[in-house]
Amino acid sequence: MDEFRRPFCNERVSGVALYELAQLARMVNGTLDGPGDVAITGVAPIAEALPGDICMASEQRYLDMIPSTRASALLVHHDVEQLQLPAIRVDNPRAAFITLLQAFAPADERDPGIDEKAIVADTAVLGDNVYIGPYVTVGPRTRLGNNVVLHAGVRIGNDVALGDDTVVYPNAVIYNRSIIGQRVIIHANAVIGSDGYGFVRTENEHVKIPHIGKVEIGDDVEIGAAVTIDRATCGTTRIGRATKIGNLTQVAHNVQIGEACQIAGMSGIAGSSVLGDRVTLAGQVGVIDHVAIGNDAIVAARSMVAKNIPEKAFVSGIPARPHKTALREQAATARLPQTIRQVQRHDKKITALEQSLTDKTNDKE
Amino acid sequence: MDEFRRPFCNERVSGVALYELAQLARMVNGTLDGPGDVAITGVAPIAEALPGDICMASEQRYLDMIPSTRASALLVHHDVEQLQLPAIRVDNPRAAFITLLQAFAPADERDPGIDEKAIVADTAVLGDNVYIGPYVTVGPRTRLGNNVVLHAGVRIGNDVALGDDTVVYPNAVIYNRSIIGQRVIIHANAVIGSDGYGFVRTENEHVKIPHIGKVEIGDDVEIGAAVTIDRATCGTTRIGRATKIGNLTQVAHNVQIGEACQIAGMSGIAGSSVLGDRVTLAGQVGVIDHVAIGNDAIVAARSMVAKNIPEKAFVSGIPARPHKTALREQAATARLPQTIRQVQRHDKKITALEQSLTDKTNDKE
Amino acid sequence: MDEFRRPFCNERVSGVALYELAQLARMVNGTLDGPGDVAITGVAPIAEALPGDICMASEQRYLDMIPSTRASALLVHHDVEQLQLPAIRVDNPRAAFITLLQAFAPADERDPGIDEKAIVADTAVLGDNVYIGPYVTVGPRTRLGNNVVLHAGVRIGNDVALGDDTVVYPNAVIYNRSIIGQRVIIHANAVIGSDGYGFVRTENEHVKIPHIGKVEIGDDVEIGAAVTIDRATCGTTRIGRATKIGNLTQVAHNVQIGEACQIAGMSGIAGSSVLGDRVTLAGQVGVIDHVAIGNDAIVAARSMVAKNIPEKAFVSGIPARPHKTALREQAATARLPQTIRQVQRHDKKITALEQSLTDKTNDKE
Repeated sequence: MDEFRRPFCNERVSGVALYELAQLARMVNGTLDGPGDVAITGVAPIAEALPGDICMASEQRYLDMIPSTRASALLVHHDVEQLQLPAIRVDNPRAAFITLLQAFAPADERDPGIDEKAIVADTAVLGDNVYIGPYVTVGPRTRLGNNVVLHAGVRIGNDVALGDDTVVYPNAVIYNRSIIGQRVIIHANAVIGSDGYGFVRTENEHVKIPHIGKVEIGDDVEIGAAVTIDRATCGTTRIGRATKIGNLTQVAHNVQIGEACQIAGMSGIAGSSVLGDRVTLAGQVGVIDHVAIGNDAIVAARSMVAKNIPEKAFVSGIPARPHKTALREQAATARLPQTIRQVQRHDKKITALEQSLTDKTNDKE
Repeated sequence: MDEFRRPFCNERVSGVALYELAQLARMVNGTLDGPGDVAITGVAPIAEALPGDICMASEQRYLDMIPSTRASALLVHHDVEQLQLPAIRVDNPRAAFITLLQAFAPADERDPGIDEKAIVADTAVLGDNVYIGPYVTVGPRTRLGNNVVLHAGVRIGNDVALGDDTVVYPNAVIYNRSIIGQRVIIHANAVIGSDGYGFVRTENEHVKIPHIGKVEIGDDVEIGAAVTIDRATCGTTRIGRATKIGNLTQVAHNVQIGEACQIAGMSGIAGSSVLGDRVTLAGQVGVIDHVAIGNDAIVAARSMVAKNIPEKAFVSGIPARPHKTALREQAATARLPQTIRQVQRHDKKITALEQSLTDKTNDKE
Repeated sequence: MDEFRRPFCNERVSGVALYELAQLARMVNGTLDGPGDVAITGVAPIAEALPGDICMASEQRYLDMIPSTRASALLVHHDVEQLQLPAIRVDNPRAAFITLLQAFAPADERDPGIDEKAIVADTAVLGDNVYIGPYVTVGPRTRLGNNVVLHAGVRIGNDVALGDDTVVYPNAVIYNRSIIGQRVIIHANAVIGSDGYGFVRTENEHVKIPHIGKVEIGDDVEIGAAVTIDRATCGTTRIGRATKIGNLTQVAHNVQIGEACQIAGMSGIAGSSVLGDRVTLAGQVGVIDHVAIGNDAIVAARSMVAKNIPEKAFVSGIPARPHKTALREQAATARLPQTIRQVQRHDKKITALEQSLTDKTNDKE
């Protein structure tokens, strides 16, 4: 089985990619510092590297670990001083690191085509080179673009569209009529298009509001494991192009998320709220319903947005307010117990002063 | 394929339901305002409506959008002033809106009966008109009521009971011995009946407490996507009739939730806590273990309940306290930095007063 | 079908285990208090017990319920006074309770071996007595130890290892190259090994950082339903031996969790953070990236760890600080509105004092 198919890969040692350091240096347009024939078989964090590994040392804390690392080579910035290990020097270690990770990424490994144990509706339309794994179900009139990958156990409803090169990991569920763009990645057990949380309360019941809208997801979106994105009541719940959503996040009905947002894990966005472009929710954030967050705004981890947030604002806290204000209040609260004691002392002193002044007045009379 | 089967549906245009406005007006017992023969093909939010859509305009902010909407008709309250668009006028726009959504809801579409690729135990008992999708598994002695729907990939354990008209969406998992009522809706990837988080700590281990209890879910409950409900250690974890649980919520072992509660998404209720009837957890709420929340209490979003909450209380914050108290503390905290500066000024002034008084006393002596 | 196979089980009444009280007393090395031939058919919480049940009454609040319980017998501490019900008296009721729960736990019930509707790669290596349920997929070169149980719909990728006696519940997904220890329990819909949330931001895009690392899970770990554990960027995301993780928790890329930790439900640990041994996160906790939490530290429910936490610390709040400090600040904040009013009164009094002193000075002149 052709486990590794990278263009520059020299040879394979029991399933492990092998490059010479000079090859990797060329791959990242870097300068070789030391012997070019060092054999490199992996990329690793510097603290847990083994012989054969190359490590990025882009920050001082990692440079400090070099004397004790077992790595065979380093990836560093051009400016780093003389090293005891062979290295590749580059202008942008982080970009080069991505290239190295790609070089060592295990290739996908699966038989092409439609597994005989998948069920694809007769009216579904499939692009070229689609992979559909075992036990997948694809509903009527659903369209899959070229190179779409549906891993085992994925459920795709009726009238769904998935663009070219989109990948859905095992057991994720996409409800009817969802529209998914190109190069989208949907991780395992994510749920796209479930009914929104909408009920009308009566005396002792909740009447369900039918959810007949849909979900639309733009190109180049990535959706983490066990994320849930609800369909709109009517109309559309939208995730804009290039937005990345972390694991276990909830996007409610009729939410509109712009392009290139970063929604880190475990965040929740309630019904009909609107996020602009390049908004950051830094993790475990809450956004109440019907609010708007402007372009380029940043919401710190574990904050709750309870009103509109202007463009480029940096907010934090529950409820979210300008981060500087929140920090000031936090610092003030830390001083609060001693402030209260001070106020008690003032109380006594003021009483004493008042008494003393009264005494004097009485003296005079 | 008979995609739309609504009684009043006039005709179908490439799979889209088509009504005349007068038909819809009759359907919601409303007054027609304008021509009755306007063709309506969908319901949409006013901001994203297209020709053919009808939109609810129940609040001023939506009425303000009327001049720029592309909708063909409106659903409004009787009292709304003269409109530029054809409309249906009603007493209760929200209730009428639900009727319209139902009218335009795509009909369910699936072959009847048991998919040949489902595995149903010989000892399972099935009601009339049950649908079991492909790759579903149903365990021994499990009983499914009439009209139960199990979508693809659902797992139903042993000795489970599902009442009439209950629907389980793809890849949801129901562990052994769970008891589920009638007309329950369970969304994709929800997990009912997993072991509770119960361990007895020893030196450097945790001994697992076996979980031999079960989960019972009342009639008309709705459970969101990726919700997890743990079985009881012994006895029963209970979700009362007509309670609605939002996505990604966790209900721990032995929790007792009353009837008609609203548990909005991403909430967590720890072991053995008890919620009365009609309790609202407004989203991302936490409830610690072994506390009780009274009937009709409301817990604001992102609060943490850390002690018993009386009936009809409205609480917020971490820990949750009466909402008015929490707001007062919040306002006070916002003023805290300036209060601290004021206290510093007092400190100087009091010192000055004391000095001044001492001086005077010395003067006199 | 041999539903119950416990060694001491006397007989079976329509699928229910039946013991005499004396048998149970011997099983837990307890003292019998009352007749030994009472028939016991279950364990239940005292509030919901039925005739035939035995209940633990280890705390006063449960002892208070004895007069009204319908239970047939009790499990109590040796020191408890005279009871109206037959009882077993022991030194450690909680430990004995676990034994009773085990005695009444329904036995696993499944056909042995590999279901004919599972797909196991030719190159997978299986230990003795493995069970693989229907619709499971097991990838190439994956190794399963002895007695491994994979329930229906589980997805196991390529090059995965699962140790002896590990159990994976339905529809859980384990991505390629994950290493799982012995006696691990993974609940339904958990996801192990999904890509971490790692992107490099450019102008209006996010370049995905390939995730080529893996996840390693130690022996005796339990992972709740719908938990997500991301693979490392490179290197390893680690969960140490005997650590227990509650439902809906997120463990990010390159996180290192020590041994015997308790990570209660809905917690989130961001990238590269390190937890020592026996750390407790008490539920809905957040830990930001790149921080370290020392051995035996406790983080209260709903706190956010935003910097390193020393060994044995007990912290709470957002951000987490020593719990005593947090309580002091909380109490001070509750007093804040009245403190502010006091400061206002001081303001007036100080002004009055200053005025009064000025008047006196003027008087004298």
